[in-house]
Amino acid sequence: MQLKPIGLIHSPFQQASGTPIQSRAAEGVEGRVELFPEFIDGLKDLDGFERIWLLYWFDRAACEHSSLIVSPYLDPHRSHGIFATRAPARPNPIGISPVRLLEVRGNLLRVCDVDVLDGTPLLDIKPYVAQFDRFEVTRSGWIEDVTNWQTTADSRFETKR
Amino acid sequence: MQLKPIGLIHSPFQQASGTPIQSRAAEGVEGRVELFPEFIDGLKDLDGFERIWLLYWFDRAACEHSSLIVSPYLDPHRSHGIFATRAPARPNPIGISPVRLLEVRGNLLRVCDVDVLDGTPLLDIKPYVAQFDRFEVTRSGWIEDVTNWQTTADSRFETKR
Repeated sequence: MQLKPIGLIHSPFQQASGTPIQSRAAEGVEGRVELFPEFIDGLKDLDGFERIWLLYWFDRAACEHSSLIVSPYLDPHRSHGIFATRAPARPNPIGISPVRLLEVRGNLLRVCDVDVLDGTPLLDIKPYVAQFDRFEVTRSGWIEDVTNWQTTADSRFETKR
Repeated sequence: MQLKPIGLIHSPFQQASGTPIQSRAAEGVEGRVELFPEFIDGLKDLDGFERIWLLYWFDRAACEHSSLIVSPYLDPHRSHGIFATRAPARPNPIGISPVRLLEVRGNLLRVCDVDVLDGTPLLDIKPYVAQFDRFEVTRSGWIEDVTNWQTTADSRFETKR
């Protein structure tokens, strides 16, 4: 199971500290997706979608020294299993972000609501489809107890490239 | 960028043909996620979430012979770029499914709304969080033109293991 980067995500964020936590906290933040030219045919008709999933590799997450129990950004005083959080330092460090698609021009996508570090390797693009992705949920575990909705990350899961 | 399987997804579906298209078409279909025992600590507090994302490897998708232009299950008479579809035969064959979590027992998860082939390698589990994943969208590209909402896949993207 070998991945290949299909492009790069460009954003205003050079380090984890200060980067928005999730697309929801990145409203209005513009970024750019640079798809490598050999994949450009795969973009046909993508521009009809208002929102798209970016799948990417958390290349600066400290996965080698990671634990299966973490204190996430939004609940720093308690610990949870890594699979009950969206923390980047995961056994397979794949991130998913539902960003807003503003424009497709050649192999470049202008996107908004970007919560990703600059230069992050892109793995996949999928359309966000309400029928597939939008669900009502009545139980959201520890997230229900969050009172301090901090909006930016810090360096706790970060490593240098 | 090397992935490691962290478990297996078990489902009633042995082949693509007849497998539900997306979790939405798999309502009520039960499956089982078997997390490899060394990752069990990562499940702490996952049981509080009603829905979870499974990330997995499309191990029977015909990616080697894949094209960047495909006719998806839901629009078989037109073609779209692979990134404008959720088809499995992708440059990086990673699938995402928002399944309902029924029960966590040791390293086994009982789940529902499973649209995944039996024996699929699991890559990651993330909680589905409404604040992060649930978006209003007013434009959904070619999906808006779908009139025949067929609910099961066929073999067009399949290859043998």
